[in-house]
Amino acid sequence: MADNKVFIFDTTLRDGEQVPGCKLNTEEKIKLALKLEALGVDIIEAGFPISSPGDFASVEEISKVIKNATVCGLTRAVQKDIEVAAAALKPAVRPRIHTGIGSSDNHIKYKFNTTRENIIERAVAAVKLARNLVPDVEFFAEDAGRADLQFLARLVEAVIGAGATVVNIPDTTGSCLPHQYAEKFSYLLNHVANADKAIFSCHCHNDLGLATANSIAGAIAGARQIECTINGIGERAGNTSLEEVVMAIKKHPELDLYTGVDTTQLLPMSHLVAETMRMVVQPNKAVVGDNAFSHSSGIHQDGFLKEATTYEIIAPHEVGADTSRIVLTARSGRSALAYRFKNLGYEFDRNQVDELYQQFLNVADAKKEVGDEDLKEMADKVKTTA
Amino acid sequence: MADNKVFIFDTTLRDGEQVPGCKLNTEEKIKLALKLEALGVDIIEAGFPISSPGDFASVEEISKVIKNATVCGLTRAVQKDIEVAAAALKPAVRPRIHTGIGSSDNHIKYKFNTTRENIIERAVAAVKLARNLVPDVEFFAEDAGRADLQFLARLVEAVIGAGATVVNIPDTTGSCLPHQYAEKFSYLLNHVANADKAIFSCHCHNDLGLATANSIAGAIAGARQIECTINGIGERAGNTSLEEVVMAIKKHPELDLYTGVDTTQLLPMSHLVAETMRMVVQPNKAVVGDNAFSHSSGIHQDGFLKEATTYEIIAPHEVGADTSRIVLTARSGRSALAYRFKNLGYEFDRNQVDELYQQFLNVADAKKEVGDEDLKEMADKVKTTA
Repeated sequence: MADNKVFIFDTTLRDGEQVPGCKLNTEEKIKLALKLEALGVDIIEAGFPISSPGDFASVEEISKVIKNATVCGLTRAVQKDIEVAAAALKPAVRPRIHTGIGSSDNHIKYKFNTTRENIIERAVAAVKLARNLVPDVEFFAEDAGRADLQFLARLVEAVIGAGATVVNIPDTTGSCLPHQYAEKFSYLLNHVANADKAIFSCHCHNDLGLATANSIAGAIAGARQIECTINGIGERAGNTSLEEVVMAIKKHPELDLYTGVDTTQLLPMSHLVAETMRMVVQPNKAVVGDNAFSHSSGIHQDGFLKEATTYEIIAPHEVGADTSRIVLTARSGRSALAYRFKNLGYEFDRNQVDELYQQFLNVADAKKEVGDEDLKEMADKVKTTA
Repeated sequence: MADNKVFIFDTTLRDGEQVPGCKLNTEEKIKLALKLEALGVDIIEAGFPISSPGDFASVEEISKVIKNATVCGLTRAVQKDIEVAAAALKPAVRPRIHTGIGSSDNHIKYKFNTTRENIIERAVAAVKLARNLVPDVEFFAEDAGRADLQFLARLVEAVIGAGATVVNIPDTTGSCLPHQYAEKFSYLLNHVANADKAIFSCHCHNDLGLATANSIAGAIAGARQIECTINGIGERAGNTSLEEVVMAIKKHPELDLYTGVDTTQLLPMSHLVAETMRMVVQPNKAVVGDNAFSHSSGIHQDGFLKEATTYEIIAPHEVGADTSRIVLTARSGRSALAYRFKNLGYEFDRNQVDELYQQFLNVADAKKEVGDEDLKEMADKVKTTA
């Protein structure tokens, strides 16, 4: 792993789009794909071509318009899936087939009712077929998070031998803790003889709220691709949030890693996906939530107004947001009140601010948020009295 | 750290309530406090008594009704704050004062414009005063996430010497990675001579999406209290989600840790807080989001219907949810379609399912989600034809 670039593999249009209520038509998918390319993601997983005629068409049309990013199509380790994906990807400048099969004993037994040896055979056959059709083939070892590590290493070595260029080690059920997920990459990179012939990829789910941490832990351990979605949408509790991993890498230069994402487009991209897919982003969502740059408690506001870095590690403009917000509530202090009055054009001395602050607290105790109109009313009374 | 219980310190009513738009009146705060006690949290941070007359009243009223949990009030390291908090907590069976001061050089310089030595003096004085008023005093070393570790150790040792029973090491700006946050606890537990006299506490913010992972990493390193909020609400991108840390601990028995939370109340509690505070929970929120137990892609549905654990690590009833959902979209497969038909009272053979599946895909490509009415229409056509 000589290079320190972490490739960003966006699966908003595949793992994100399979969420209840998120289905997109081809036109919407093309629009989002172009925005993802402009954002600087390296790989766009455009769909699962065999799943429906509509999804085939989407992958095909996206393949025609994307020029810089790799366009990827999902398949099972099944001949027909792979052939259909290759057909959909035919117009792509940089096509990738993403094929794979269950690797945990749970999946091998309950989903496939077969043996570990048979899984390796099917995996190798799928990768070989895909490599005959496209030069870039990613293999996913589904449910690797719960797979036996020695078996996983054998499987990975076999698929790299068969031509896989990228190996995806998914925590399909979102069950791993970060140190556990990292240990898988460390083990594989040390025990798979041909590990240097492929890029290792993180694909995490957020069932315990750990997808971002797991992905970063994977990258620290040597993975060089992270699979993620805008706003962390996806099956169940969702996938890793693209905006979170990108900012975590950016804010930790000591990791000596980087991505190609233009972070100033993160917030507009988040809004576009939320609107197009009608999937609300909660106000307290990291990086892109409405409150991510709001300061409301007195202690925080006072510190923030003295020096923004006391409470802010991301400057709003870094992710394309306008500015930080000083919100007035019953937990706000005098410095925030004076700041907001000043913005409205009022200048009060310390005694006046003290007097106004008592009035303000009475108003604030009765309301969720004190607005400019309330402030003007208070200010004008003081002006009249003075 | 002989005991393996991780105390759950809920700050929904303090750090959560200071969010724009989330302010509660005293009646609402009491109602939520009683539910939090029933949920099994160990400490309820009820408010910041000096911040407003309304918040003083809330802390006082909550102190009267809570019998089992500890009731905690926040203060700065300021005499007046501490005296007012003690007055508000007077009726409590188990009162705790939570006092503290900035510990990073950034906070010492920009917020307090003072020296490290002066910070230690003020911290010790605050803890001594608080211990004269209540037997349980927690000290927070604000912005510990960015503090110099050697200085932090001196500060912590001094406040434990002054009588602090709990020491909170907050990652105030949400900037730490899990291994970095864990290292702070390891260092402090090994370098603070009187560390065994206090419980160490995690308090994380979610600016990079890492709050849950950081809290778990802190607990693995020896912290035995986690500060968190329902739905992860809080300043900016919010605090650690109570439901996520509780379930992460429950789902990882190998950590040999436990909490006193009754997990079957998590989802009702989440709904209650979301409604009372009018803070929406996104569908892809871990543990409590609307989609947390929904399966919609064909591969996932097929596996899930064979054996739930293939794609589900948390059974819905564990958190008080009814049941898993099989949602039909264009990404669903035959097994999910047959399952839903069976639930509606239809039994089709394999050929009929194949035929219906093609019809289904055409309907699904045009809609976000295929409902029972659509299915009945398709089924009745097949019945008529047959």
